[in-house]
Amino acid sequence: MKNNALIMIAVALAVATSLMPVALSFEDAKEDNIFQVSVIRATVEGLYDGVMTFEDLKDHGDFGIGTFERLEGELVVLDGEFYQLMSDGTARIAKDSMETPLATVTFFDADKNLSLEEEMNFSELESYLDGHISTENIFYAIRIDGTFDYIKTRSVPAQEKPYPPLAEAVKEQTTLEFNNMSGTIVGFRYPDFAQGLGLPGYHMHFITFDRSSGGHLLDCVVRNASVSIDEISEFEMALPKDQDFQRADLSDDKKEELKKAESDTDLRSNSSSSS
Amino acid sequence: MKNNALIMIAVALAVATSLMPVALSFEDAKEDNIFQVSVIRATVEGLYDGVMTFEDLKDHGDFGIGTFERLEGELVVLDGEFYQLMSDGTARIAKDSMETPLATVTFFDADKNLSLEEEMNFSELESYLDGHISTENIFYAIRIDGTFDYIKTRSVPAQEKPYPPLAEAVKEQTTLEFNNMSGTIVGFRYPDFAQGLGLPGYHMHFITFDRSSGGHLLDCVVRNASVSIDEISEFEMALPKDQDFQRADLSDDKKEELKKAESDTDLRSNSSSSS
Repeated sequence: MKNNALIMIAVALAVATSLMPVALSFEDAKEDNIFQVSVIRATVEGLYDGVMTFEDLKDHGDFGIGTFERLEGELVVLDGEFYQLMSDGTARIAKDSMETPLATVTFFDADKNLSLEEEMNFSELESYLDGHISTENIFYAIRIDGTFDYIKTRSVPAQEKPYPPLAEAVKEQTTLEFNNMSGTIVGFRYPDFAQGLGLPGYHMHFITFDRSSGGHLLDCVVRNASVSIDEISEFEMALPKDQDFQRADLSDDKKEELKKAESDTDLRSNSSSSS
Repeated sequence: MKNNALIMIAVALAVATSLMPVALSFEDAKEDNIFQVSVIRATVEGLYDGVMTFEDLKDHGDFGIGTFERLEGELVVLDGEFYQLMSDGTARIAKDSMETPLATVTFFDADKNLSLEEEMNFSELESYLDGHISTENIFYAIRIDGTFDYIKTRSVPAQEKPYPPLAEAVKEQTTLEFNNMSGTIVGFRYPDFAQGLGLPGYHMHFITFDRSSGGHLLDCVVRNASVSIDEISEFEMALPKDQDFQRADLSDDKKEELKKAESDTDLRSNSSSSS
């Protein structure tokens, strides 16, 4: 009788679990989307309190970028690992219990793989990517593994309350420069109509091959790299529910302030003087 | 033994189904979001081909607004029914097989119910709503059932290819005016940072109490109405995959063009002259 009962349990479990594919297929369908916590417009305003744990964020992607509570470092999510790139140049694994104020993740699934062999600077790399996307009107996740003749990144130290706006906070940023460094660029391209949600155009972070250092990408010269592009037409966003977010005045788009905070000011003044 | 086996099956089923709440809670969580097909910026550009069937759209909401293939009328989704408000002033049920180029839906679940008793014009109504939301930084679905001293709506006739941009298409709009009419306003409020995705601020459609007529709301005077507000922090968007969308130049935000196409020009010129 004991055996019979076990067989019955097995059958019953099989029947019951056969009821579950609805949920699974829903999960599957969700995998080719971008999931974003908060909006970059809130970060520009100085909202650096965490609003979602990395434990929860992991349910939404294995690849991405973002920042940390108090703006303490830059986030790189790569192959399911969550790295915190500190302003002292070191990288560490982010704890599940830590919270992010702003992050964008996806389950990376390349639609296009390219082999990049010529030497390119940062703006040439962006033009190269622009030449290999089918439209500017959807989202893309971009992964570039390779050797970089030059890489310049930045990271920001933890801020204290009352938090300064991003334009002030990045004045304390530390920049790192690498020569002849292997590593991975992790980033996204947003369409122009999504400005306010994320950085328009490319937003990329970098982590070294040994996953020991990196930051928000400011400049680079790339040579010999493999480029993978994930085309993404579905976008999902969870807005914070805390009072700071509710009370923030986000009506002005502060486009220029954002652009300045997230790009290399030296590089921008160089490029404008050379044009 | 048969009894024992049945008990075992019952126990096993109970165990197995206890594994399912993860999926169910995920579904539950999805219900308090906004789901949007395409972006209004694409409609401004004249992209009126359908990109999702109403059958599929029904999975994402029972309440909402939008438009139809060829811009043929205004969409009102109310209590799970999908209405097409034609430019001749009549309403009909939209077929499941029909497709929408642009729609926003949610499963309506009121967080706040208000009783509106004073007489208010359109801009007073918007200010009243602004006074009853906790923050301008999330999304809201808004339902207003009541008696309207005055209602002005518009609807647009079907367009022919090559489609003109929205600013041209609305020149053919038919406006309807109602006095002392009972009915329902169905709409959303988007935060400013979501401009480009949808109309910033309020975007509302109207349908008469007998569900026989209505359109995109241009003006109103309301008296005795019940107002229900659904606060929504999660936003989901599916972008079109067709070539017209891929090829469209959506880089300029065309804010003024959109505002003009979606509001009452007479009303706007009146209000600007009175200010």
